Amino acid sequence: MTSADLELTAGGRRLRFPAVWLRDNCPCAACQDPGSGQKLTDITDIPNDLGVAASADAGESVLVTFAPDGHRSAFSRSWLAGHALDGYADGDGRTEDDKELWLPGDLAPSNLPQAGWPRYLDRPTTRIRALEDVLRRGFVLLHDVPAEPGMVLEVAASFGFVRETNYGRLFDVRVEPEPGNLAFTSRAIRPHTDNPYRDPAPTVQLLHCLRTAVKGDGPGGTGGGSPPYAEKAGGGVTGLVDGFAAAVALRATDAESFDTLARTPVPFGYIDKETELRASLPLIQLSPRGRVRGVRFNNRSARPLRLPYAEVTAFYTAYRRWAELLARPERQLNLRLAPGDCLVFDNTRVLHARTAFGMTAGSPGRHLQGCYADLDGLASTLAVLRRQEKQ
Amino acid sequence: MTSADLELTAGGRRLRFPAVWLRDNCPCAACQDPGSGQKLTDITDIPNDLGVAASADAGESVLVTFAPDGHRSAFSRSWLAGHALDGYADGDGRTEDDKELWLPGDLAPSNLPQAGWPRYLDRPTTRIRALEDVLRRGFVLLHDVPAEPGMVLEVAASFGFVRETNYGRLFDVRVEPEPGNLAFTSRAIRPHTDNPYRDPAPTVQLLHCLRTAVKGDGPGGTGGGSPPYAEKAGGGVTGLVDGFAAAVALRATDAESFDTLARTPVPFGYIDKETELRASLPLIQLSPRGRVRGVRFNNRSARPLRLPYAEVTAFYTAYRRWAELLARPERQLNLRLAPGDCLVFDNTRVLHARTAFGMTAGSPGRHLQGCYADLDGLASTLAVLRRQEKQ
Repeated sequence: MTSADLELTAGGRRLRFPAVWLRDNCPCAACQDPGSGQKLTDITDIPNDLGVAASADAGESVLVTFAPDGHRSAFSRSWLAGHALDGYADGDGRTEDDKELWLPGDLAPSNLPQAGWPRYLDRPTTRIRALEDVLRRGFVLLHDVPAEPGMVLEVAASFGFVRETNYGRLFDVRVEPEPGNLAFTSRAIRPHTDNPYRDPAPTVQLLHCLRTAVKGDGPGGTGGGSPPYAEKAGGGVTGLVDGFAAAVALRATDAESFDTLARTPVPFGYIDKETELRASLPLIQLSPRGRVRGVRFNNRSARPLRLPYAEVTAFYTAYRRWAELLARPERQLNLRLAPGDCLVFDNTRVLHARTAFGMTAGSPGRHLQGCYADLDGLASTLAVLRRQEKQ
Repeated sequence: MTSADLELTAGGRRLRFPAVWLRDNCPCAACQDPGSGQKLTDITDIPNDLGVAASADAGESVLVTFAPDGHRSAFSRSWLAGHALDGYADGDGRTEDDKELWLPGDLAPSNLPQAGWPRYLDRPTTRIRALEDVLRRGFVLLHDVPAEPGMVLEVAASFGFVRETNYGRLFDVRVEPEPGNLAFTSRAIRPHTDNPYRDPAPTVQLLHCLRTAVKGDGPGGTGGGSPPYAEKAGGGVTGLVDGFAAAVALRATDAESFDTLARTPVPFGYIDKETELRASLPLIQLSPRGRVRGVRFNNRSARPLRLPYAEVTAFYTAYRRWAELLARPERQLNLRLAPGDCLVFDNTRVLHARTAFGMTAGSPGRHLQGCYADLDGLASTLAVLRRQEKQ
């Protein structure tokens, strides 16, 4: 008798699969390309009244005959057990559920996500750990990347593809005489994500230090601290904040503000002579299941909110709480980048900041080079490295 | 007396602005960088108990004095009238609300979004119209782009930046001996969006025709039709479907399926020797206000759903309805690309398809070149062109 489902016991568990789900995942060569694994049939090719006409054990496999068309599929029991339809297991590693949330104290200093560039290049296990750190902890600090212009692009090429923007394939972060962006001044910049006025915003950012602000250049240039942890020697200290950890903390203490931020699109913009970008998205982005999947925070480029009056007032209350939470010193990991250090971080999660730094007449001044890339390519490189390790 | 709001009459309307909103948008040189227009103050710099201590008319401006800190701002009346807080006006052009939805009949043939490449290069008005077509109608067909390898990158550079992927900066769409992707075979491919296994997926796709399938190559090679409209002369006809129009139609007729598709993340994947990509996102993506903002549809690269049993069954009902709707011939605009034609389309909205085509021994066969880019850069180029037109 035809049944709507296949029921079986595998791995000691009773499993149940709808006929249409099974058929949509049929591994036979007519349904799935043996080379690419891509599906060769469309959901509309599957009969509407599909059922399981018969099933039979064949060692490790279960043979299923479908009605009404008599198509036959073989499913391995272990594959079926691994795909049990008893909960949600369809994530792609991008929500809070697949992250290791942190406060600076969790990372300091023995547990800092870091690696030496020569080792990273030579040893797949080092590369695997470094890329895992970006995905799970939001960043990695690579040391001893030659402090030469353009090297930041080689770091990006080691795991993915550069996302070119109006700032170029790479951009120089140093004091410019006529800055189009506050990044290119010596001002302090509070924790923010980059390019919120872009959709899609770049999901990975790299910052490679070529030259630090010389000692005494800093506005509070009292020295002290040893790399990579430091206070304000010369200024220009880089701060990182885990935006997912902060969002989870906000939800725990002020669910109303969290909801307001997740449902209110905020308009961001950036204008210069050759560019006019805008995007309107919430400061906290959720997955369809309500899990934190992205943060976007950048007061500098926020544009006037256009909402009904009552919503504006509620938004500003939530916005201030969120900004205060993100600005708390105890959430900020301070790193003093030395020449050759390259930070690689998740721009959908980790906010970055810098202290002000000074310029001494005749001194060349602080100089970083940055570029953008994307998490999907980084995760792909990691998956392939893991596959090779297993072989 | 200090008030929480500024109230005024402008353009014959009574307007009301909360003090914090005004202050966050203060245009003075201490609050906004005169060069970049970027904000110099953070929301946390604004006093928590901010109010409007006084306001005074000054011709076209209103002078506001804030309490408790005495900060003074001047707002133009016309700017305030243009930013009235009486509704939602914060979009970025990316949802259904800013699109012109279409069925093929709406575009045929006098109203087809198209332009000649030489004119597009020479005349800003032609370029403006073509880029507007991509944003508002989802695509533009450029004619007379020299049918030379690599030209697709020049088309992309005319409005934005190439998004490099594992397929390269550009990719060749032609029959390959050992295809890693079904695109590189002669098979028919039904309407789909590209790279659903990527997050962020590329938001613009370009396809440039270098050579068509020769007549008689097509599986149903009966000839007929004249460019750009055609049936199956030689096969390899390109079909376009407005996914936003289809989503709106689904919502109108089957709100339950629409909701199911909007809230269920679907895992997509792509694997080859050097690549292992995955992303899990809904087939219909909504803005926080519930408006259609993206579609993602590609049966070939869908991976097994991992949901509780009851949700799987509901999902497949919705999925089949959605696939049937997208497959309807009356939703598909058929274009026969001639050598030199270059399609530029919104990969978050417009699905593309092709009919199968044949190969004649000794004939060089169909050859397209494609690349990816992003909508944000395209919209920026358009905004700058419009600005220049006004000057």
